[in-house]
Amino acid sequence: MPSGIDADLKKIRPVAGGNLSRAQEHLDSLTKPAGSLGRLEELGRRYAAIKGLDSPRVRGMTVYVFAGDHGVAAQGVSAYPAAVTPQMVLNFMKGGAAINVLARHFGAEVVVVDMGVNHDFGDLPGLVHRKIGGGTADISQGPAMSRRQAERALETGINLAREAAESGIDILGTGDMGIGNTTASTALISALSGAPVREITGRGTGVDDTALERKIRVIESALRINSPDAADPLGVLAALGGYEIAGIAGLILGAAIERTPVVIDGVISGAAALVAHRLNPGVADYLFTSHQSREPAHQRVFELLHQKPLFDFEMRLGEGTGAVIGMSLLEAGAKIYSEMATFQNGGVSNRKESGC
Amino acid sequence: MPSGIDADLKKIRPVAGGNLSRAQEHLDSLTKPAGSLGRLEELGRRYAAIKGLDSPRVRGMTVYVFAGDHGVAAQGVSAYPAAVTPQMVLNFMKGGAAINVLARHFGAEVVVVDMGVNHDFGDLPGLVHRKIGGGTADISQGPAMSRRQAERALETGINLAREAAESGIDILGTGDMGIGNTTASTALISALSGAPVREITGRGTGVDDTALERKIRVIESALRINSPDAADPLGVLAALGGYEIAGIAGLILGAAIERTPVVIDGVISGAAALVAHRLNPGVADYLFTSHQSREPAHQRVFELLHQKPLFDFEMRLGEGTGAVIGMSLLEAGAKIYSEMATFQNGGVSNRKESGC
Repeated sequence: MPSGIDADLKKIRPVAGGNLSRAQEHLDSLTKPAGSLGRLEELGRRYAAIKGLDSPRVRGMTVYVFAGDHGVAAQGVSAYPAAVTPQMVLNFMKGGAAINVLARHFGAEVVVVDMGVNHDFGDLPGLVHRKIGGGTADISQGPAMSRRQAERALETGINLAREAAESGIDILGTGDMGIGNTTASTALISALSGAPVREITGRGTGVDDTALERKIRVIESALRINSPDAADPLGVLAALGGYEIAGIAGLILGAAIERTPVVIDGVISGAAALVAHRLNPGVADYLFTSHQSREPAHQRVFELLHQKPLFDFEMRLGEGTGAVIGMSLLEAGAKIYSEMATFQNGGVSNRKESGC
Repeated sequence: MPSGIDADLKKIRPVAGGNLSRAQEHLDSLTKPAGSLGRLEELGRRYAAIKGLDSPRVRGMTVYVFAGDHGVAAQGVSAYPAAVTPQMVLNFMKGGAAINVLARHFGAEVVVVDMGVNHDFGDLPGLVHRKIGGGTADISQGPAMSRRQAERALETGINLAREAAESGIDILGTGDMGIGNTTASTALISALSGAPVREITGRGTGVDDTALERKIRVIESALRINSPDAADPLGVLAALGGYEIAGIAGLILGAAIERTPVVIDGVISGAAALVAHRLNPGVADYLFTSHQSREPAHQRVFELLHQKPLFDFEMRLGEGTGAVIGMSLLEAGAKIYSEMATFQNGGVSNRKESGC
């Protein structure tokens, strides 16, 4: 690891366990049966433990949509042509994509980051220009990128998290755009978990049986040719990752460094979270999962992160669409913590004594 | 049935199946893989089919929290004293309860209706005064209320839905407050489903093993003494229901009459939905479930309504806390339908032709 990232990662501190129990004590003093808000209380407890037990506010929420192209798309692993990656970036900038609609609805800003789209956007206003390369190389033929490129992509994500924290963003979310990126993510998750490719490969945007078989063979070939070493997560990321996946992994690391909660999306963000977690397991305390996607590889991510999905709406879109719903639920949990009356100041009787 | 309600119920019309398929065609033209937003698309499809295929807007959302006391609370079936019902109504009016916090967050108005709280609120401003009685009679000794009272409670709910529709509320939600009302709801669900009391009785606000055994015996006694006839849903409601449960059932019927989508909360609203559904199965087209509560009786409601819960946050609070989350998700589905770009106007390539 370069000394810069290495020094950054050393700043990650665990959330104090005492904070979690004190946060739960406060939640138990509010006018509701103890624990009756279930997972919303879990969100409020973790948020307060991270952001401060007295009055944990949510000033702003931003979802970062990292975009990048994948050389492996040329192998026919997606139902859509690679040209859709830049087309969707332009759609994001015009506000017409699902992530724009859902982020508006749930009160999050959308920031789109070009990490490596195979298209020249010129100086398109609003787009965050951080291109590491014009799409990765085909992972079924060799490594996706160099180690140095992977490091630069991680640094990009870390810096975005730092800038967000400085500008008062209290909740980060992750999203992705990149035709071919369920292929790269499945390869990453297989390399890091040891799960057999055939068991965890899904249909992504919706490929048919023939293309699914092709996708499985392509991922198996990527793992054979690159022979990634699970003990070297940066090497695995460089071999199989996408630029956008590396950017997400960086944002997650940066969130933990800055002690900012980060809500992840589906299987692409999950693969990135796994990379970040292998680089520093301390990210787990700041990481919040959102939905369970329909991609089978996603289940391995939950198992390895020891987290449960928050909801399952049978979604498989990416872009951060699951993350923004999770961000709104996390904000709701924080407000439950901060805004509810206590039994004492609300004038409500608590449980009867036993035997009553 | 009195001629008034009977005439009202005849106005319920099914949602045209053609509307649902045309709504899905529109959803499939939007810039996302077909079906990739899963249950959000289901919500958008049903909403557009009900409210209009061209541009189904959501102008306002209101959650109605119906409150009522239960004579059966004297049997020691709850972890809280009955005095908590009026105390929580006052807490709602001050904005300090969980439903207030969540409704503010998710953009719904809260309207609290006194259907039968055993307390004189005077002319407390903001509270909707519709008291049918000062709490029901103890169902373990006889009927909760008269048939006429049950009818009046249903009419109250129907009228509230009518007034909401007239004032431009596009999404209704249901909530409840009433110490002892999981006992009444479980009795209702057992009577209407035939499910054995022991299998479906839960801990409500959190009773211990001794109180749970007592609760089971009390419900069995209520069913034995009242011997309700499942073919007479109004009779079942009068025998076992609460005033707030009857109000919710009325609101659901009124929503269907007015063609307004209504999102229901947990097991109390579920029992009310079952009553409404037995009075007129046409309500199903306008009814949206939200969360799966921890009460075992709730599962029977989903089975009998042929609906799946949208999410499971391990909540067991009531008040409409699950409903407002569901209302926001329904609004999100409606916005996906109305606000997303199409492949054509968004300049995005659709799927490759097969073989490509």
